[in-house]
Amino acid sequence: MTDQSVLAVYPGSFDPITYGHIDVIKRSVAIFPNLVVAVVGNPYKKSLFDFSERVEMIRSAVGDNKNIKIDTFNGLLMDYVCSINAKVVIRGLRAISDFEYEFQMALSNNKLNSNVETLFMMSSAQYSYVSSKLIKEIAQLGGDISAFVPDSVALKLNEKLEQFKRR
Amino acid sequence: MTDQSVLAVYPGSFDPITYGHIDVIKRSVAIFPNLVVAVVGNPYKKSLFDFSERVEMIRSAVGDNKNIKIDTFNGLLMDYVCSINAKVVIRGLRAISDFEYEFQMALSNNKLNSNVETLFMMSSAQYSYVSSKLIKEIAQLGGDISAFVPDSVALKLNEKLEQFKRR
Amino acid sequence: MTDQSVLAVYPGSFDPITYGHIDVIKRSVAIFPNLVVAVVGNPYKKSLFDFSERVEMIRSAVGDNKNIKIDTFNGLLMDYVCSINAKVVIRGLRAISDFEYEFQMALSNNKLNSNVETLFMMSSAQYSYVSSKLIKEIAQLGGDISAFVPDSVALKLNEKLEQFKRR
Amino acid sequence: MTDQSVLAVYPGSFDPITYGHIDVIKRSVAIFPNLVVAVVGNPYKKSLFDFSERVEMIRSAVGDNKNIKIDTFNGLLMDYVCSINAKVVIRGLRAISDFEYEFQMALSNNKLNSNVETLFMMSSAQYSYVSSKLIKEIAQLGGDISAFVPDSVALKLNEKLEQFKRR
Amino acid sequence: MTDQSVLAVYPGSFDPITYGHIDVIKRSVAIFPNLVVAVVGNPYKKSLFDFSERVEMIRSAVGDNKNIKIDTFNGLLMDYVCSINAKVVIRGLRAISDFEYEFQMALSNNKLNSNVETLFMMSSAQYSYVSSKLIKEIAQLGGDISAFVPDSVALKLNEKLEQFKRR
Amino acid sequence: MTDQSVLAVYPGSFDPITYGHIDVIKRSVAIFPNLVVAVVGNPYKKSLFDFSERVEMIRSAVGDNKNIKIDTFNGLLMDYVCSINAKVVIRGLRAISDFEYEFQMALSNNKLNSNVETLFMMSSAQYSYVSSKLIKEIAQLGGDISAFVPDSVALKLNEKLEQFKRR
Repeated sequence: MTDQSVLAVYPGSFDPITYGHIDVIKRSVAIFPNLVVAVVGNPYKKSLFDFSERVEMIRSAVGDNKNIKIDTFNGLLMDYVCSINAKVVIRGLRAISDFEYEFQMALSNNKLNSNVETLFMMSSAQYSYVSSKLIKEIAQLGGDISAFVPDSVALKLNEKLEQFKRR
Repeated sequence: MTDQSVLAVYPGSFDPITYGHIDVIKRSVAIFPNLVVAVVGNPYKKSLFDFSERVEMIRSAVGDNKNIKIDTFNGLLMDYVCSINAKVVIRGLRAISDFEYEFQMALSNNKLNSNVETLFMMSSAQYSYVSSKLIKEIAQLGGDISAFVPDSVALKLNEKLEQFKRR
Repeated sequence: MTDQSVLAVYPGSFDPITYGHIDVIKRSVAIFPNLVVAVVGNPYKKSLFDFSERVEMIRSAVGDNKNIKIDTFNGLLMDYVCSINAKVVIRGLRAISDFEYEFQMALSNNKLNSNVETLFMMSSAQYSYVSSKLIKEIAQLGGDISAFVPDSVALKLNEKLEQFKRR
Repeated sequence: MTDQSVLAVYPGSFDPITYGHIDVIKRSVAIFPNLVVAVVGNPYKKSLFDFSERVEMIRSAVGDNKNIKIDTFNGLLMDYVCSINAKVVIRGLRAISDFEYEFQMALSNNKLNSNVETLFMMSSAQYSYVSSKLIKEIAQLGGDISAFVPDSVALKLNEKLEQFKRR
Repeated sequence: MTDQSVLAVYPGSFDPITYGHIDVIKRSVAIFPNLVVAVVGNPYKKSLFDFSERVEMIRSAVGDNKNIKIDTFNGLLMDYVCSINAKVVIRGLRAISDFEYEFQMALSNNKLNSNVETLFMMSSAQYSYVSSKLIKEIAQLGGDISAFVPDSVALKLNEKLEQFKRR
Repeated sequence: MTDQSVLAVYPGSFDPITYGHIDVIKRSVAIFPNLVVAVVGNPYKKSLFDFSERVEMIRSAVGDNKNIKIDTFNGLLMDYVCSINAKVVIRGLRAISDFEYEFQMALSNNKLNSNVETLFMMSSAQYSYVSSKLIKEIAQLGGDISAFVPDSVALKLNEKLEQFKRR
């Protein structure tokens, strides 16, 4: 048995992907060359972008890398992780409030499936405190978000918000 | 290149090893079959047990496992990690106060060597809030520590404290 | 005057009751043999279960114990507490975020009525980070919640969610 | 160049103003005699009171002070701050959860405009843990809020809630 | 069996007693009329005042109240608590950092003796962030501590520090 | 009366000064052109550098700026602040643990002198989690500290540690 069998999943809403997410992806794939970036659909929480838009923005942001697969799923994370035989879930930690939520999720997920391990990375200093939610708020109020997301994402985000205003 | 080249280090004082440490070691080696448990010597902070005692207690606690090496080092963690070509440092997170200290260390270590990644595991619920320091305090006051450390460690710890009292 | 006059209230949404709540109830009644478990109705926040369902689930979970009364109320906690001449309010603390909210509530309640004391218990390690909200989310996504609530509650919860899906 | 050119802004929802806000305003104007209390309108978050009601309550609470201007704005804080050539933004810190949010906002705002500085004051002990949101909840449930807001505000708040009930 | 059998212990260093401690004692005895204020001696941590001085200052601060006993002990808290057949330990919570330490202690103590319950009170707003340690630091630097401790304690503390300087 | 009368103090150990301190000084003097950087001597806590060395390193780090005075003091901060008629104390906040300590100090200082206001700045993201204590630990273990302090400080720190080793 080799480590190559270790499949790692980096799940998230990615609504949209930020420089903080890209940082975690790059650092993760350096350790786990079998990485799946998994976009989660939550039927109970409306997203700004649909699945295909989010996948496209991730692909354009991480570029062409055969070690990174991009996937989508609905339902429980632990069910998805087991369905693809992944052993590791990766999460970024930015702040204390993240810590609490992630601690709760990691303990719950461990109850649901103790064979899957959740590993955490601290966000790089310059990306801590940058969340998709905050970026959407700034963009909605007409602020410049080029410091927080790649240009391709900023363009899409502003287009999307423009559509909402027109309605 | 295969994942097998990923050498992971779990550093700590292990003064002495606790059930919490053992939990992290077992979960880590399931992901990184090339694991080094590295006992750190801090010239500026006195330990209760010397290097050889701490190594012996770890060995007896984790048993015979060819995937786990036990080592010791003095000096800077990042220097040690580079000297053995390790790529990953593993740390356990028990509580908010851990989070702050570990965040600071992870960011500093990244400044010192950005090729090494620090990964965190949340302590299992039953081992959170169990620290070597607390266990030593309980033992010093005559309390029963069998819920926190293996019997072999409890024995050594009580012997050691007995020696100190005699002085 | 004896302590028997000390009437204690354990208020909550209990939507639904969890093993964490049951743990607090059992530990509270060992100290305050005059305990009221009080289900709060919040007109501004929709609950999944109605008053009678929540009361029934609590009764089935705590069993037949003459020291525990189950009640419901609308309006301000301090008004309810005074109306039944209770002197103590009991709250469970699971995490830092609980602490902040509870600190705020305890200080405000003290401003409203300084004769009533709020006492806190730390959740048992195995029940910390288990909230009704999280359990409902797991159940909604088809996860197994048997580790978090009694079987009778799991059954009711899955029935209720089934009803919502059919609509 | 003199310090008199330092224009400071204390932004907030003030929905409604509390004793905690009044405390920050009084302490701020003692340092920055050119102070603007700026009521923010958030198109994505409904307020209980409209702009003119909030301004009126602030004016009645802080009294006649030529060093304090009251203003309103929509859109991004940093855009407003620049439009009036202010150099300092003042924020009150009540608790850890404030700290996290404010840290995130201060770092983001610094990215958007590094010439504007955010300064924080710790809430006075007796006003920490008093938020507009909590006060509205207590008032909605019929509680006495005279310890948290001036009488004029309590009157307006109860009138407003009465109007909502009648609908 | 009546509630009167519930013996409660409020343990601490009380080196020296502060207004914050006195607040907890008064609120505790209103619920538990069988209260022991227990001064702990820690052989591994030097105190400023010896046992008899600390007991005397507590007695003078809480006055003559037949419901409050003052005692001293060495060794493990849980051992002491059991030796006097107490069922409840009372602790004050002032801040997040208290929360973490107290959570750890409560869980450990529960492991050592699950029949004893630790109950927490939030410090009154005006006494939060007042610690014996801070008061000693202020007094050492010549500051006025009359806002933090009773006059009798302030006197003793200044006398004691005077003695140390003379050495 | 003009704002120019507002004298601001930035107190600290500066043992030694870091890029984080320099960042706070530069941002402070942009608001308060009457700024005193005040090095505190604590008779109960040994510093690595003496007063004159710390002052010299600050001077070399902040350069020649007539708006910044550098001073030293022993005793209580509030006494020093009053003795020079300063109205504002500036403090940097890096993390949650800072917040707690600083909250405690700000509330205590306000009790000691309510005419002096403490204002806080959030550390810039790249300097958060950089403390003098951590830098000294890294230097002691032979690590490269050039990312954390100016070259002149790094030189002095390594010289000083060399002297200690020789003893």
